[in-house]
Amino acid sequence: MADKVTIADVARAAGVSRQTVSNALNAPGVVREETRRRVLDVVEELGYRVNQAARQMRTGRSRLIAIRIDPDQDGVSGSVHDRFLHGLTEAAAKAGYRVLLYTADGDAAEIAAFEDLLGAHEPDAFVLASTHHGDRRISWLLDNDLRFVTFGRPWSDLPNARHPWVDVDGAAGTAAATRHLLAAGHRRIGFVGWPPGSGVGDDRQAGWATTLASAGIAAAGLIRVATDGVATGEAAARDLLTANPDVTALVCASDSLALGARAAGPVAVTGFDDTPVARVVGLTSVHQPLAEAAASCVALLERILAGDPSARTHMLLTPSLIVRQSA
Amino acid sequence: MADKVTIADVARAAGVSRQTVSNALNAPGVVREETRRRVLDVVEELGYRVNQAARQMRTGRSRLIAIRIDPDQDGVSGSVHDRFLHGLTEAAAKAGYRVLLYTADGDAAEIAAFEDLLGAHEPDAFVLASTHHGDRRISWLLDNDLRFVTFGRPWSDLPNARHPWVDVDGAAGTAAATRHLLAAGHRRIGFVGWPPGSGVGDDRQAGWATTLASAGIAAAGLIRVATDGVATGEAAARDLLTANPDVTALVCASDSLALGARAAGPVAVTGFDDTPVARVVGLTSVHQPLAEAAASCVALLERILAGDPSARTHMLLTPSLIVRQSA
Repeated sequence: MADKVTIADVARAAGVSRQTVSNALNAPGVVREETRRRVLDVVEELGYRVNQAARQMRTGRSRLIAIRIDPDQDGVSGSVHDRFLHGLTEAAAKAGYRVLLYTADGDAAEIAAFEDLLGAHEPDAFVLASTHHGDRRISWLLDNDLRFVTFGRPWSDLPNARHPWVDVDGAAGTAAATRHLLAAGHRRIGFVGWPPGSGVGDDRQAGWATTLASAGIAAAGLIRVATDGVATGEAAARDLLTANPDVTALVCASDSLALGARAAGPVAVTGFDDTPVARVVGLTSVHQPLAEAAASCVALLERILAGDPSARTHMLLTPSLIVRQSA
Repeated sequence: MADKVTIADVARAAGVSRQTVSNALNAPGVVREETRRRVLDVVEELGYRVNQAARQMRTGRSRLIAIRIDPDQDGVSGSVHDRFLHGLTEAAAKAGYRVLLYTADGDAAEIAAFEDLLGAHEPDAFVLASTHHGDRRISWLLDNDLRFVTFGRPWSDLPNARHPWVDVDGAAGTAAATRHLLAAGHRRIGFVGWPPGSGVGDDRQAGWATTLASAGIAAAGLIRVATDGVATGEAAARDLLTANPDVTALVCASDSLALGARAAGPVAVTGFDDTPVARVVGLTSVHQPLAEAAASCVALLERILAGDPSARTHMLLTPSLIVRQSA
């Protein structure tokens, strides 16, 4: 590799001090415009690149955003995180940031990872996905006055649950699925979801329930819950259909549950997340705007890092229903 | 956040100079063992953490490994990259490295990303996935004397195609699938693959062809190729089965092609990559040991970064066949 161009080379060629070069690059306001232009011309001519370690020592900014990468879970819904991660990397790069990965199994391990990262690479901010009730990671980041945004709203009304977040409106998604089934003539529409207590799952169930209620349709006894999975979804749907043979359609909280539900009987089925599997097997599913969610996270972080107090805000994005053969 | 413990705090508490603290941490050989132990005790007691930017200024090492994250392609095989990425992040963390992401659409864009990263965060090494014939990224990294390992062997015999790599033996995978079909009594076994010229695809085809040849079974006319996809796979398989109605089994170069092939007729079908879709629909498929591949990449990088000349080596891992209902 050719020898690296240093700040001293730039200073020499521009006929200014190293401090002036540094100011021209980092604090343009304190340098005369003419000087700043001359320095930038030389920077371009010599191909000088700002060394990030040096810049970090000076500015206290690493230009890094850290996010956890999750292991492949059931294999079906992992693709959601993957798509969000790709969108985040792309949006971050446009804003001059890079994405740093870490793994952690549980909140305590993730807090240990925060400490480790802050002691070493010092990311400027964190993006937390998979928020949940009593999320200790959030309290820890708030207590330590660190910058972060969550992809997922805070699922509790603790006073410290006030931080910037981006989320997708799950209730709007299942409401759209339910309206689609109503429009197709279905009246007895069941719901296969997760056990109560998960914010995301409760929200998705609410979208189905309120839509039926608005249509004046009773839904008592038409809910079954199961831990996420294809086999568990099939068992739950079978139980629901056996107890309610007049049910002709099922709204499900995930594509995994929906794949199981399809095997349980000849009823219309909708899933959630528009996973690759849904595309392949023709499952109608709710699609989350993940690239937009990722870009929104980066946009919020930029404002937070710029010290904009109005950035303590939130964005709730609306998903869309992708209609396929299953409903 | 509590005030950060500095190297000066450690020096004071240990009764040594800051230089000695630095040596104890970075060049243990030059410090007396007793002193080194005292310093390390204080480091632990005070909870001193090495600042990565400062360390990088001193050592020229960023402790970062950069890798491209790909967008969701057809949606079926994206999970392979995702699983590799998770394995890489985990293995890197154990070795004291973090994974930095970037996106790039094509070789030229990826080389621009290399330059950008090297000018800023200065990763110590790159991991390149999806190697291909005439891979300009590899020549560029070699020409610039940079450290990297590829996940995927070099698919050309250019003299510069000599670099450390880790790969999974695709031919061994399709050979295992073909042997499995032969053992089940199939004799007329076709192959649905990608157009010739892709190293990975040619290799997978070779595993099928050589296994049939070893068994003394003719395979002339039993190959169809298509760009990757479910619909393209179905069309290719339909064409093959129409021309050869005696074919009872199809070995496919990917799960996408295999999913299409299953729809083309009542024949046994094997896929490749053991994607989530394969698990859900019961497709027999070749499973790549991705966590092991990722850990091997990190192990090779550690040796390269330690200056070990024997690290210019390669590792070819053997995949396994996951038998399900489809074959």
